[in-house]
Amino acid sequence: MAKKIDPMKDIVSLCKRRGYIFQGSEIYGGLANTWDYGPLGVELKNNLKREWWKFFVQEREDMVGLDSAILMNPKVWEASGHLSSFSDPLIDCKSCKSRFRGDKLIEDKLEMSVEGKTLKEISEIISSNALSCPNCGQKDFTEPREFNLMFKTFQGVTEDSSSTIFLRPETAQGIFVNFKNVLNTTRKKLPFGIAQIGKSFRNEITPRNFTFRTREFEQMEIEFFVEPGTELDWHKYWCDESQKWFSSLGLNKDNIRFREHSADELSHYSNKTTDVEYKFPFGWGELEGIASRTDYDLTQHANTSKADLTYYDQKNDKHFIPYVVEPSFGTDRTILTFLLDALHEEELANGNTRTVLKLSKKLAPIKAAILPLKKNEPRIVEKARQIFDTIKTKWNVQYDDTGSIGKLYRRQDEIGTPFCLTVDFDTIEKDNAVTVRDRDNMTQKRIGVDAITDYLEKSLSD
Amino acid sequence: MAKKIDPMKDIVSLCKRRGYIFQGSEIYGGLANTWDYGPLGVELKNNLKREWWKFFVQEREDMVGLDSAILMNPKVWEASGHLSSFSDPLIDCKSCKSRFRGDKLIEDKLEMSVEGKTLKEISEIISSNALSCPNCGQKDFTEPREFNLMFKTFQGVTEDSSSTIFLRPETAQGIFVNFKNVLNTTRKKLPFGIAQIGKSFRNEITPRNFTFRTREFEQMEIEFFVEPGTELDWHKYWCDESQKWFSSLGLNKDNIRFREHSADELSHYSNKTTDVEYKFPFGWGELEGIASRTDYDLTQHANTSKADLTYYDQKNDKHFIPYVVEPSFGTDRTILTFLLDALHEEELANGNTRTVLKLSKKLAPIKAAILPLKKNEPRIVEKARQIFDTIKTKWNVQYDDTGSIGKLYRRQDEIGTPFCLTVDFDTIEKDNAVTVRDRDNMTQKRIGVDAITDYLEKSLSD
Repeated sequence: MAKKIDPMKDIVSLCKRRGYIFQGSEIYGGLANTWDYGPLGVELKNNLKREWWKFFVQEREDMVGLDSAILMNPKVWEASGHLSSFSDPLIDCKSCKSRFRGDKLIEDKLEMSVEGKTLKEISEIISSNALSCPNCGQKDFTEPREFNLMFKTFQGVTEDSSSTIFLRPETAQGIFVNFKNVLNTTRKKLPFGIAQIGKSFRNEITPRNFTFRTREFEQMEIEFFVEPGTELDWHKYWCDESQKWFSSLGLNKDNIRFREHSADELSHYSNKTTDVEYKFPFGWGELEGIASRTDYDLTQHANTSKADLTYYDQKNDKHFIPYVVEPSFGTDRTILTFLLDALHEEELANGNTRTVLKLSKKLAPIKAAILPLKKNEPRIVEKARQIFDTIKTKWNVQYDDTGSIGKLYRRQDEIGTPFCLTVDFDTIEKDNAVTVRDRDNMTQKRIGVDAITDYLEKSLSD
Repeated sequence: MAKKIDPMKDIVSLCKRRGYIFQGSEIYGGLANTWDYGPLGVELKNNLKREWWKFFVQEREDMVGLDSAILMNPKVWEASGHLSSFSDPLIDCKSCKSRFRGDKLIEDKLEMSVEGKTLKEISEIISSNALSCPNCGQKDFTEPREFNLMFKTFQGVTEDSSSTIFLRPETAQGIFVNFKNVLNTTRKKLPFGIAQIGKSFRNEITPRNFTFRTREFEQMEIEFFVEPGTELDWHKYWCDESQKWFSSLGLNKDNIRFREHSADELSHYSNKTTDVEYKFPFGWGELEGIASRTDYDLTQHANTSKADLTYYDQKNDKHFIPYVVEPSFGTDRTILTFLLDALHEEELANGNTRTVLKLSKKLAPIKAAILPLKKNEPRIVEKARQIFDTIKTKWNVQYDDTGSIGKLYRRQDEIGTPFCLTVDFDTIEKDNAVTVRDRDNMTQKRIGVDAITDYLEKSLSD
C-alpha cells in the first residue's frame, strides 16, 4: 500500500479524467487558474458543505446561519480596513517587466516570513540579500508598492468613484454587519455564533497550485461572539472542534498541524491566531485560520455606521461589544485536501495495482454503483433496474453496465464509490441477493435484495 | 381564512422581523436592492436548492450537475452574444436628468411589450405616444442607447482592456463550455442534461420589488441536450416537469401560468419559449423560462473556440451539434414566491387572527419546535432536552422556552414550523408522551416519546 509518487499531478489528472474538476473556460485556453467542478466534483462539494453545516450549525443550539450578498456597501470595506490595507507588496523586474509579490519572493528564496513587515523593510531584505528575478535572473527591481486585492466593479449606469463597489474578499463582514439583525430576530445569548458559506474574490497576483490559491473561491466562516476575557478559552475550543470535524471525515491526523502565529505575524487586532495546515505535496498550506479578533470588527462598524452594535447583558445590566473568535475554512482547499488525502495506489495480490480514492463515505459523490453482470440478460437487467430505482431516491447512486465487472470496479474505486452491488444469475435464480463489494478492503458479501436499503443506511453512516 | 391585504409589505416585514431576509448592508443604509438571507432564510434557501437538485438531478439518470466559476474567459461572452447585445435601452430625461429603461417606460405606460424592438422603434413609440418623465412630467428624453448589463472588473495588476473580465450574467454558459468535458467523463447518450445552481450578476438599471429583481441573484439552470427535431417535444416535457416540481412543493396552481412567447418576443435563436409566471402582488412575474434554444450556443462556442463540440451518434454513425432545451429558474424569485404563496392570515374561532406561513414541510426551515410547558420545572426541562437532543441530529429543530405556549405557537406559526411538541406534566407523570400540534389545522394529538422520530419521519415526508 503506497501513496502515489507525484500526488498533485495525479490528482489533477484524475479530477479531469473522471469529472471532478475541469479547468475553467478550458475551450478558450482557460482563465487565470479558475476551475469548474464537474459532475462528481459538485456532489463532493455539496456533501462537504452539508457536513460542515450539519456539524457547525444544525446540531448546535448556539449557532445560526446566514447568507449575505457578495456586493456590499463600500463603507463596509472602509470600516473593515480592506480599502486601506488589504494589499500585497508588488514589485516589477525592470529588466524583463515581470511582476511579483515581494513577500512571496522573499519567502520562496529565503524561507522566512515577512508578515507584518513594511514596504521599506521588504525592499531592504530584497536588496541586502541580492535577490534576483525568477524569470530573467537580473537584480533590478522597482520599489515595492501596495496593490489592493479587492476586485472592483461599477454598479448603475455610470463608471466613476461614486458607483465603485467591490466583490467581497471575505464572507465575514456580511456577518458583522448583520450582527444586530441576527441578535434581534433570534434572541440568542452570548456565547453564540453566526456561520456562512459563500464565494469570495481576491485579485491574487500569483494564483497557483490547482484549486489551492484561486481568485474566486468559497469560504465556510464562523464568527463566534463571546464575553471579553473568555476569548482565549473559546479559541482553544474552536481548535479542538475543528480537529474533531476533520477527523470525523477521516482526514489523516499526521497530515495536519495547528500552527500558532508568532507575535510579529499576528494581525494588529488579534490576540491569538492559529492556522490549521495540511501537508500538501507543495508544502504545508493553510486550510483554516482560527483567529481571536477581539472587538475590532464590531467596533469599527459601530464607529463607521453609528449603529449601536452592543450586546445587552441582562444579568449584569450592562452593554458591551462582544469579542469574537473566527474559524474560517477554505472550501476549495478543503476539497483538495480530502482528495489528496484519499488518493491511494495499492499493489494487489496478483501483482497489479489499483488507484483508489478512499473518501469518507459521507463525502463520496456516489454512494453505491449497481452493476448488472450481463447487460443482455433481461432478467438481470430488470432486477438491477428495480434495485437502482428503489435506492436512487435515498442516495446518489449510479447504474453502470458499460464494461466488465473488473473494469467497473476499477472505475468506481477511482472515483471513490464505497460500495458496488452486482446483480448476477444467482440473484435471479437462487438467492435474490446481490454481491456487495467494499471499496476499501475489496471484501465481498451477499446481501438479500430486501436488506439492501438497511445495509446501506447502516454502512454509510458508520 | 383570508389572504393578507398587502402581502408584499407583510412579507417584507415578516422576513425582517423573523430573520428570513434582511436588507443588505443595512447599517450603512443598504446597497441598491441587495438582500441578505438571515438564519431562517438561509435554511429555506438551502432546502429549496436541495429539493430542486434531488428532483432534477439526483433522481434522474439523464442529468448530471456542474458548478462552474463565476469569472470566465471574456471570449465566452463574445461567443454567446452577451458582449454585443446583452443590453437595455437607456434614456435620460433632459429636464430632471433621471435615467430610465426605455422599454420599461413603454411597458408601464402603454402596457405593451417591446421585446425585440430596435432602439429606433423604441424612440418612435416614446415620442409618438408623447410619454412623459415619471419623475418630473416633462417630455424631453435623450435618444435611447444600449447599456450593457454585465458587471465588468479587472483581473491582475493592470486596469485595461486586456485585463477586463465580467461577472457572469447567467450560469448557462458555464454549462455550454463544459459540454465536451462532461460528455467525455460521463459517457452520457442523448438526451441528457447538465444542471447548475449558482450566482449571476446583472447591472439592472431599476432593481426593485424586494428580491424579485436584484443585481446579484441565484439561478438554477438546466441545459438539456437532445436530437434536433425532438426539441419541441422535450420543451413540452420540461414544462410538465416544472409544473410537477412546483406542485410537489405545494404551490397553488391558480397562482401560476405558462405563457408562451409570441413570435416577435422570441429570441432570434429560439423556436419556442415559455415563461412560467407567478401572480405576484405587483402583477404576473417570471419565475422560470423554458427556452428551446436550438444549436445556437454550442455552435457559437464551436465557431469561436474552434473546439469540436459535436456529439457522436454511434447508431447512425454521424456527428452533429445537439439542440438544447433550457429550463432556467430564478432561485430568489422562487423563494419569494413560496413565501408569498404560504402567507395566510386566518380568523380563529375566538375571533382572534393568526398569521401562518403554510410552507411545504420540505421547505420549512425549522421542522419542529420542542416546547417545555414550564421552564422552571427540572423534570419537564430534562425530558424536553432529551427529546431535542435526539431529533436535532436528524432535522433542523428548535428548543424554545421563552414564552407561554400560546405565544410560542404564534411565533412558530409565523415562521412556518410544521409541528410543535409540548412537554408537560402528563409527559413525566403519566404517559411519557408529548402533545403534537399541527401548524395547518391546529389539531393536537398525543404521541409517545419513543414514537416521535417515526412520527416526524412519516409526517415530514408526506
